[in-house]
Amino acid sequence: MNFINLIDYAGTFAFAISGIRLASAKQFDWFGAYVVGLVTAIGGGTIRDLLLNVTPFWMLQPSYVIITGLALLFVILLGKFVIRLSNTFFIFDTIGLGLFVVVGIEKSLDAGFPFWVVIIMGMITGSAGGVIRDILINEVPLIFRKDIYALACVIGGVVFYICYKLEFSSIITQLLSVGSIILTRILAVKYHISVPVLKGNSED
Amino acid sequence: MNFINLIDYAGTFAFAISGIRLASAKQFDWFGAYVVGLVTAIGGGTIRDLLLNVTPFWMLQPSYVIITGLALLFVILLGKFVIRLSNTFFIFDTIGLGLFVVVGIEKSLDAGFPFWVVIIMGMITGSAGGVIRDILINEVPLIFRKDIYALACVIGGVVFYICYKLEFSSIITQLLSVGSIILTRILAVKYHISVPVLKGNSED
Amino acid sequence: MNFINLIDYAGTFAFAISGIRLASAKQFDWFGAYVVGLVTAIGGGTIRDLLLNVTPFWMLQPSYVIITGLALLFVILLGKFVIRLSNTFFIFDTIGLGLFVVVGIEKSLDAGFPFWVVIIMGMITGSAGGVIRDILINEVPLIFRKDIYALACVIGGVVFYICYKLEFSSIITQLLSVGSIILTRILAVKYHISVPVLKGNSED
Repeated sequence: MNFINLIDYAGTFAFAISGIRLASAKQFDWFGAYVVGLVTAIGGGTIRDLLLNVTPFWMLQPSYVIITGLALLFVILLGKFVIRLSNTFFIFDTIGLGLFVVVGIEKSLDAGFPFWVVIIMGMITGSAGGVIRDILINEVPLIFRKDIYALACVIGGVVFYICYKLEFSSIITQLLSVGSIILTRILAVKYHISVPVLKGNSED
Repeated sequence: MNFINLIDYAGTFAFAISGIRLASAKQFDWFGAYVVGLVTAIGGGTIRDLLLNVTPFWMLQPSYVIITGLALLFVILLGKFVIRLSNTFFIFDTIGLGLFVVVGIEKSLDAGFPFWVVIIMGMITGSAGGVIRDILINEVPLIFRKDIYALACVIGGVVFYICYKLEFSSIITQLLSVGSIILTRILAVKYHISVPVLKGNSED
Repeated sequence: MNFINLIDYAGTFAFAISGIRLASAKQFDWFGAYVVGLVTAIGGGTIRDLLLNVTPFWMLQPSYVIITGLALLFVILLGKFVIRLSNTFFIFDTIGLGLFVVVGIEKSLDAGFPFWVVIIMGMITGSAGGVIRDILINEVPLIFRKDIYALACVIGGVVFYICYKLEFSSIITQLLSVGSIILTRILAVKYHISVPVLKGNSED
C-alpha cells in the first residue's frame, strides 16, 4: 500500500462517515446507514465508470466495502465523539475530494476522451456521491446551494489541464491539481465565499 | 449545421431553461442551476445510452454543455423577462420533446431492438431528464401527475411504428411522429386533458 | 413456462403492485403509476445489469412490461379490494424478493465476480427497485428505516455462498437461499425484529 492508496482510503472513510452521519440524523438503521455511507463513498466513481463503460472500480477489490464497514463501526462506537471531530473530517473529506477528482481525471484521460469530458468526469467522481447521498435521505443536494464544492472540482480539472499542456511531470500535475482543490475549499469555507444564488425567477 | 441540428439545439436550450428556472425557484447557486439544467437536457438520452450500452451522446461533442451554459447566461441576464416567455418555451420544449423522442427511437432501432423496447427508449429519451430534474430539486416528478407528457412520447412512438410498418419514407415518418407528439401536448394543455388519477388506495 | 418463471412473474406482479399502490397514495395518474410500478419491478435488476455491463434483462422479452400493465389493470379494477389482500401480497413480495436475489446472485456468479460482489449484486437486485420507487414518490427509502429487507437479501446471499462452497446441488442451493430470505422476513415481521437505529448524531 503506497501513499496514494492511503489517501484514497482516508478519503473513502471520510466520505462514508459523511453519509453515515447524515443517515443517522434521519433515524436510519445500521444497515441503511451503511448503504448510504457506501453510496456516498463510491457513487461518484460508479457513475463515472458507467459513463466510461468500464467495470465499476469498487467491484474489483473489496477495500471500499470494508472501509465503509469500519466507518460504520467507528460511528456506532464513537458517536458523540465524531461530531467534535468535524474539522478533522473536513480535512480528510477535502483531501479525499482532491484525490477522487484526480483519479477520475486520469481514468477518463486514459479512456481517450477530450479534456472537457475529462473535467466533467473529475467533477462527477468527486461530487456525484454526495448528490446521491442527499437524494437517498430526501434532501435537496447540498452542493447545489452551499460551499464551493463541485466548482472546486472543476478548478482542479482546469489546473490539471494546464499542467498537462505545459508537460509538467505526472506527480507535479497531480499535486498542483489536488492542491488547488484543497486550497479552493479551504479559502471558500474560511472567507465564506460562495457562488451567487440565481434570483428573480419565482415559479408561477 | 442542418435543420435537425437546429431543432435539437433549440430543444436542448428549452430543456436546460426548464431545469435552470426550477433550480432558481429553490435558491440554487449558479453552478447548481447549471448542473440541474444540464441534467434536464441530457439526462434522458444518457439513461437511454447506458441501457443501449453505447457512449452517452453528449460526451462525443461539446454542443450540449455549451448550450446549457448559454441557457444559464440567458436566465442570469434576462431573469424576469424569461417568465413572460413561458409560451415561447412551451413551444420550444414541445418541439424539442418531439425531436428527442424520435432521436431516441431511431438510435434504439439501429441497435436492433424490437419495437416495444424502441418505444420505451423514445419515452425515456424524452422524459427521464425531467424526472431527474424533479428528483434533484426534491419534488415529486411532475410528469407523473400533470400533463400528458410521457404518454405523448408513447403516442409518438406508436405513430412512428405505424409509419415504419407502412414503409413511409424516413422524413415523413419523422415528421408525423414529431407532429403527433406536438399535437398531443398542445391539445392536452389547451383542453386540460389529462390521464385519470389512480384512486381508492390510501395507504395504511 | 416452468416453475421458476411462474415465481418470477408472481414476484414481478407483487413488486409492481407495491409501486402502483404507493403511487396512487400520492395522486399519480395511471401512466405515472404504471411507470412507478415498472421501475419498482425492474429497477434492481436494471442497476445490476448496468453494473455487470450486460443488456438489461427486461429489454430481452416483453413479459415484465406486460405483467406491470396487468398489475395496473388489477389495481384500477379492484382498488379497495387490493388493500385487504395485503397479507397475500406480502407473501408474493417476499417470495419474489427471494427469487430476484437468487437470480441476481447466479447472473453475477456467471459473470465471474468474487462472492462479496455477488452478494451485493443479489441485494441490489432485490432491493434497489424499492429504493428508486421511494425516490420517485419523494419519500425516504423505507428499507433504510424499517423491516429487515436488504439484510434478508444479504443473509440469502451468505446462505447461497455456504451451500455453493459445500457443493450442494443447484436446486438445493436455490431452495435454501430463497427459503432463508423468506424465513428471515417472516420472522422479522412477526416478531418485530429490526436492525438497531443509529443514534447520537444529531447534525449541527
